[in-house]
Amino acid sequence: MGSSVAVIGAGSWGTALALVLADNGCKVTMWARRQEVVDEILAERTNSRYLPDVTLPETISPTSDLERALADHDYVLAAMPSVAFRDTMKQVSPFIHKDTRVIHATKGFDKEKLNRMSQVILEEIPQLDARNLAVLTGPSHAEEVSRRFPTTVVVASKSRATAEAFQDLFMNTYFRVYTNPDVVGAELGGALKNIIALGVGLSDGLQFGDNAKAALMTRGLTEISRLGIQMGAAQMTFAGLAGIGDLIVTCTSKHSRNWRAGYQLGQGKTVDEVLSSMNMVVEGIHATKAAYALSQKHEVIMPITNAIFHVLFEGKNPRAAVEDLMGRGKTHEMEEVARMSMRWEE
Amino acid sequence: MGSSVAVIGAGSWGTALALVLADNGCKVTMWARRQEVVDEILAERTNSRYLPDVTLPETISPTSDLERALADHDYVLAAMPSVAFRDTMKQVSPFIHKDTRVIHATKGFDKEKLNRMSQVILEEIPQLDARNLAVLTGPSHAEEVSRRFPTTVVVASKSRATAEAFQDLFMNTYFRVYTNPDVVGAELGGALKNIIALGVGLSDGLQFGDNAKAALMTRGLTEISRLGIQMGAAQMTFAGLAGIGDLIVTCTSKHSRNWRAGYQLGQGKTVDEVLSSMNMVVEGIHATKAAYALSQKHEVIMPITNAIFHVLFEGKNPRAAVEDLMGRGKTHEMEEVARMSMRWEE
Repeated sequence: MGSSVAVIGAGSWGTALALVLADNGCKVTMWARRQEVVDEILAERTNSRYLPDVTLPETISPTSDLERALADHDYVLAAMPSVAFRDTMKQVSPFIHKDTRVIHATKGFDKEKLNRMSQVILEEIPQLDARNLAVLTGPSHAEEVSRRFPTTVVVASKSRATAEAFQDLFMNTYFRVYTNPDVVGAELGGALKNIIALGVGLSDGLQFGDNAKAALMTRGLTEISRLGIQMGAAQMTFAGLAGIGDLIVTCTSKHSRNWRAGYQLGQGKTVDEVLSSMNMVVEGIHATKAAYALSQKHEVIMPITNAIFHVLFEGKNPRAAVEDLMGRGKTHEMEEVARMSMRWEE
Repeated sequence: MGSSVAVIGAGSWGTALALVLADNGCKVTMWARRQEVVDEILAERTNSRYLPDVTLPETISPTSDLERALADHDYVLAAMPSVAFRDTMKQVSPFIHKDTRVIHATKGFDKEKLNRMSQVILEEIPQLDARNLAVLTGPSHAEEVSRRFPTTVVVASKSRATAEAFQDLFMNTYFRVYTNPDVVGAELGGALKNIIALGVGLSDGLQFGDNAKAALMTRGLTEISRLGIQMGAAQMTFAGLAGIGDLIVTCTSKHSRNWRAGYQLGQGKTVDEVLSSMNMVVEGIHATKAAYALSQKHEVIMPITNAIFHVLFEGKNPRAAVEDLMGRGKTHEMEEVARMSMRWEE
């Protein structure tokens, strides 16, 4: 028998990762907040609201009882929306011992303090050894993972042993896991990409073309990296799967809620119209507010984030915002990054 | 009156850049190899074969006479296909003086020695001062530029003065120019991205999904960077417009010939069938051969390039090639890059 894993959260991503673990021979207990999700899995072996067309094997046991979910586990995987993260961690805390290895797969910022999710975990579960903590991120639509499409992700942890333990737990022929020591960069890449997806949607809605789209993604990555480095991340993480990889998936898929929200803004709808038509959380809108505050706190120049902030919260015209971005002063591409590895010869 | 610029090459990219220069008030002389292109421009003010639906202003004077094209110029822009590059530079050479500032916008390798285009220029025009040489690259479909869609590019030169002179020459409200001292990285980014576009087309043709596509682009960028660093490029260039920016445009546009060739291979066509159906040069096929040879010469591991080489030239099954890529041994994302900026805490 494989390891026992408690999966906290039965949304599309929690369910898809539970399927990977089940494929790898793990015994999975999956906690769902709603009893109806538990009942459906028990009766039908499906989770139709979050991951249609997938059958869950018997090795995935659902429960809405946190204590029961955590009664017997080797590992804990947290995969809730960022808005529910802190509250759920508070409730999880009594059942976690010091040596538990915990990994989370949530992309976003804590609304209260703008903290990263791993910081929230350590605040709410103070007995946890920080070396036992990891984050799973990267370019991974849950639907594709659940259909066993080839996918690569990153597991980041301060501890190599923890990173490699989770690599062993998740890796298989369709799910390829890279390890990385940069927890800060891995979390920031996943949280900040949604801002750029909004901006790319905006540009696409304005019919600005593929050149502008690629430019926004590239320059967006540059400013995300700039903030990340100030916050302690490694430049290279943003050039990898947790950075540009995740950005590509989010910006080029028509299924991305953030891209769609931006697209509708670009087509002339107001922010209120877009939000009421989507009927779902658009993570990028909260992330824009958080990144705007963080850029001021860390004194980092983020022109694209600023432009999107002004469109979302100050009624700026989207076309004027994108044209302003193009019209900024002349710039040298490499002076802007933290570590210049090449200089002018004269 | 603005500067005089001789544009060598009247394909889609040469013509689009001539239009930018004309918009900026330059007097442009554009050399076309074929007299019929010259005649059409003179009679109709169009270049319908290469850039349909665009009218060329009177400030762009076409000629098929190289000496006349270069009779009176402040700057020279070379924009021919890589296969014609060396021969044309040989013919251009007698009309270039030491102080001429030359920029090229050609992506590819010299077939003869696998050299970069700037190396070919210096070999064929030995009197040219290397500090007067620059390259223009980045995410830029010619059609979009000719329609004045927002576009950003990079001008790289060893000399800041030269880079800034070309930045001033090209920059306007829809054409944003960044400068960069890394000529090697700028040229390699543009030449090597076509290999990854082939691979992404292959994956799309096999219906492997968006996660696999993003992974191939990200890991492709990693191996391109690895080769580039060995050849003297700066890591950061690959994270910028000349690297990931250009890669994004090439891999996500259905208009890319390289992506289309890969897509057809993924759907089960043979290399011969694909080439005969395309009736055009697929730069990525030559680039794969060049990069394969360069990776062996510089002892750089390039798994994606290798896999595509085996598919193109050794009859390997595309599905098996992509599955092999996914099944490689466990890997640590950051050990592979030249400059590790973060280490495990334990």
